[in-house]
This record gives sequence, C-alpha cells and structure tokens, in this order.
Amino acid sequence: MSNEPLLLLTLDLTGTFAFALNGALTAIRVAQLDVVGVLTLGIITALGGGIIRDIMIGSLPPATFSDWRYLAVAAGGALIAFFLGRRLDRMARPINILDAAGLSLFAVTGASKALEFGLGPLQAVILGAITGVGGGTVRDVMIQRIPTVMRSELYAIPALAAATITVVAIKVGAYGIPVAVAAAVACFLIRMVSLRLGLNAPRPPHA
Amino acid sequence: MSNEPLLLLTLDLTGTFAFALNGALTAIRVAQLDVVGVLTLGIITALGGGIIRDIMIGSLPPATFSDWRYLAVAAGGALIAFFLGRRLDRMARPINILDAAGLSLFAVTGASKALEFGLGPLQAVILGAITGVGGGTVRDVMIQRIPTVMRSELYAIPALAAATITVVAIKVGAYGIPVAVAAAVACFLIRMVSLRLGLNAPRPPHA
Amino acid sequence: MSNEPLLLLTLDLTGTFAFALNGALTAIRVAQLDVVGVLTLGIITALGGGIIRDIMIGSLPPATFSDWRYLAVAAGGALIAFFLGRRLDRMARPINILDAAGLSLFAVTGASKALEFGLGPLQAVILGAITGVGGGTVRDVMIQRIPTVMRSELYAIPALAAATITVVAIKVGAYGIPVAVAAAVACFLIRMVSLRLGLNAPRPPHA
Repeated sequence: MSNEPLLLLTLDLTGTFAFALNGALTAIRVAQLDVVGVLTLGIITALGGGIIRDIMIGSLPPATFSDWRYLAVAAGGALIAFFLGRRLDRMARPINILDAAGLSLFAVTGASKALEFGLGPLQAVILGAITGVGGGTVRDVMIQRIPTVMRSELYAIPALAAATITVVAIKVGAYGIPVAVAAAVACFLIRMVSLRLGLNAPRPPHA
Repeated sequence: MSNEPLLLLTLDLTGTFAFALNGALTAIRVAQLDVVGVLTLGIITALGGGIIRDIMIGSLPPATFSDWRYLAVAAGGALIAFFLGRRLDRMARPINILDAAGLSLFAVTGASKALEFGLGPLQAVILGAITGVGGGTVRDVMIQRIPTVMRSELYAIPALAAATITVVAIKVGAYGIPVAVAAAVACFLIRMVSLRLGLNAPRPPHA
Repeated sequence: MSNEPLLLLTLDLTGTFAFALNGALTAIRVAQLDVVGVLTLGIITALGGGIIRDIMIGSLPPATFSDWRYLAVAAGGALIAFFLGRRLDRMARPINILDAAGLSLFAVTGASKALEFGLGPLQAVILGAITGVGGGTVRDVMIQRIPTVMRSELYAIPALAAATITVVAIKVGAYGIPVAVAAAVACFLIRMVSLRLGLNAPRPPHA
C-alpha cells in the first residue's frame, strides 16, 4: 500500500475524526463532564485502540500519539462534540456511518501493522480488532459503563472479520489496496446491516 | 528450572485455563455479556496479569500473548464458561482449587521473570503478585466492580508470600524446582485455608 | 537542572508522598477497602501518572517503579492513610497544598522527560499533564468513580499550563531551575486559587 499513502492517511484521519466525535458525544450523553473530560474521552476513543496495539507490539511511542495530525484531528472532533452536543443527535446516521468506516479502516491497518512487527496471525487478528474497538472500550470503562462491545450489537465481530481477511491475504501474498478495501468494506457492511437489523452477538445459553 | 520445561508449561497452561474459566464465570454472574464479552473477559483474566508484568519490564510483545497456546487455552476456558455457565456453579470447589493453583504458579513465575529482567527484589515481589492478581483486577474494573482483591479475602497476600519466597531464594542462590514448588504450595495453602475460614485482609481501623 | 539533583529528588518524593496520602484517603472515603486496596490505590495514585508517561515514551521499566525510594515513600503515605484514616480529615488543607505541589512538580518533570525522549512539544505538554493527573484518574476508575479531573475543578488545566511553560522554555533554550520553579509555582497558584474560589472547567453549552 506504499504507493497510496495520501489516500490511506486521509481515510485514517477521517476514521479518527469520526471516532473522536462519536466517542465524545457518547461520553456527554452518559456522564456529566467538563471540557477536559470531553476532550480526553474523545481523544481516547479515537486513539486508544491504536495505542493499546502499539504498546502490545512494543512500538513506542505509539504512532498516532506521536503524529500531531492524529491528535489535532481527534481534538477537533471532540471539541465539535463539546460545542454542538445534543444538536448533533439528528446527525446520528451519518455519524454511525463514519464510525463504521473508522472501525473498518482501523481493523485493517491494525492487523497489517501487527503482522509487520512480527506478531503471529492469531495475534494480528486480535490486535486488528483491538485497534478498532479498544478506544471505545477504554472510554466506556472511564465513564462507568460496561463496554457496549462486550454486551450487545455486532461491533467486534465485523472488525475480526476484516482483520482475518487482511491477515489471510498477507499470508498468501495477495495483499494490496484492492484486498484492503475489500476487507474494510466487508466490515463496514456487516456493521451497517447489523445496526439496521438490530442484530446482537449471542448471549450465554444458560445465563 | 530449565530441565523441567514441559512440566512448567503444563502447570502454567493449567493455571491459565482455570483463570479463564473462573474469570469468565464471574463475569457472566455479574454482568449481562454476549459471547464477545465473555471471551474477552476470560482471556483478560487469564493473561492480563502477565501482560501487565511484561509491559512493566519492557518485554514486548507480552510472552503469553505471543504464544498461541496460552491464547487458545484461555479462549477454551472462556468458551466452556460461556456454554455451561451457571451449570458450573456446582463445580465451585474444584474451580476454586484450580484458581488457587493458577495464582500460586503465576506469582512464582512472575517474580522470577521480573528478576531475570533486572528488576529489583521489591519490584519483583510486586510484579509476582500482579502476575497473579492483575487479570482479575482488570476484569473487575471492566464489569464495574471494585476489584475483590482490594476489598476482601486473602488473595494478594498469598501471592506476595510466594513471590517473596521466590525472590529470596533466587537472591541467596537456592532457587530450583523444589523451592519453586514450596513457594507455590505455600501460596496455595494460605489461599485455600483462608477461603475455608472466611479470612479477610484487615480493614482500616477508623474507616 | 543537573546541579540540583538532591533538591529535585526531595521535592519529587514530597509530591509522591502527598499523592499517596491523598489518593489513599480518597479511596478510603469512597469505597470499602482492605489494607491491600488502600496500599494499591495509594501507590497507583502516586506513581500511576509517571508509569503511564514512561510506557508512552517507551522508557521501561518505569523510572519511579524501578526506584525503591518512590515505592517506599508511596507505600508509607498510603499506610499512614490506612491507619489514621478520617482522623486526617481535619488536615484537608495541608494535604491539598501538598497535593497541588505534587501536581505542579509532576507536570514540570513529566513534560521535560517527554521532550528528552524525543517526543514533540504537543505530546510533551500532554504527557506532563498526564504525569500529574494520571494516577488519580486510574484510582478513580478502580473505585468506580468518574474521574474528578474529567468532571469538575481545575486540575488538568494548571498542569497543562505548567507543562506548556516548561516545553516553551526548553524549546527556546531558557530552561533551568528558575523557569522550572516558575512553571510549578504557576500551576500551584492556579490550583490553589481555583480551589479557594470553587472554579470549575467549563461544561458543554448544550448538555
């Protein structure tokens, strides 16, 4: 994917922005926060997954934390949420779409980076999913909410699907922009269809 | 302990399995989770302590995360909890025994690994205990529960005992399989006796 | 600041002590904890911010964890809180003063260490603030409380101010003991004045 770095960067920053906006809005809805809290939680939602991945693979300081563009875009998304707040509630649909796009991109780039750093295929799939869902999970824990990703909806599962496609493609030597896009689109579609149909991951049979 | 690697691996994987099973069962009892949540929390309970230790000593990626056997055994334990759930409640006693065994082994191997990586004796004792109790602590925080280890029972204290024996033995050059087993057995016995007698760590005198 | 290492160490250990004492007292007030919990949360409050900073900059094992003096001072502060508990409530004012001093020092030393390790100026400011507020944030999450720093008071903002002064001074080559002291004093004064006046960071306008 080295010949399309600008496209990749643009997509990645778009995902970061959507995560920060959505993450900060969720935080405002659930908890009484001040500007420090909204900014912190927006940035954590946007960058947290990639930071966890980079800690796990030992790539420190974390890439998206070192690159001021990610920090700036994440802070921008969080500040928009801070100032517009519930007025953005009518934008739920476009924000969900951007969020699903972010999830898809992060899962693909997260899995591919983990492989690059020598992790095994199983670990790369898990780290791809963590890149996608990790930030929102940390945010939920910080606002005293059991992370949505562990309770309902299909959120980790599409990310795992995209990460698996990515890892398999790299392992068989078929990876490139087309496969990366296909993996992200698969994640995006599963996520959007499951949101529309209200699908949930299975619950324990005897709980 | 280099001449008994298979024994050590078997014991370590047994502890991992017990932690994942027990961790996932606790999570199911406390919170409404789906399959993603049960798997995540079972794996975090089993591997979380070792991952925190490896981050603190700078040994990345974390050993038990890199080794697919630990991931597979942890996922297996969590899935059994998912499918059998409360039906395992009558197995509380054997599960407690396995969990105490896991705690004991993790404290010993955690402390010895920290020393190997050049940490001081005090730090190695703390990291041994964290290896034993860290996973369950992270799980509790994620399901909105103040970690049991900080509230009641003797759980960290037997782990600290085993880690201290380990560190002292290594420092005086007396470490080997017999001492490692003795340290683990000491932890195991303190834990099981305290469970039986309902012992708790002391509370603040004027709280 | 290399010609005043003893002064710096003394100040740093004083801040560590105040953070541990205050952190453990807060934990005792909010949650039912045993001695393990009080010690753990006191130490986490005191050392947590620096540990997060050192993980982010890849300086492992974390400095204050490796140095037994920080661990010992933090454990001492937590134990005093454990034994004296609410009897220290009449000491709220001196403890708040020490806590503000700790916040100020940690923000300055945290930002300067991040720059030393090659992080950018924006990142160094953020890591300076995290060094000051990170430990209390982790403590709050562990006792099921939405971190104060994200809800009310001016706590992160004075830390950001001190970190910014530090980073600017280093970048223009004007850093030294006088500037470090000035940055810490600025943070300390903002914190103490805001406490006295009951100032809060702004809330979302439409929440």
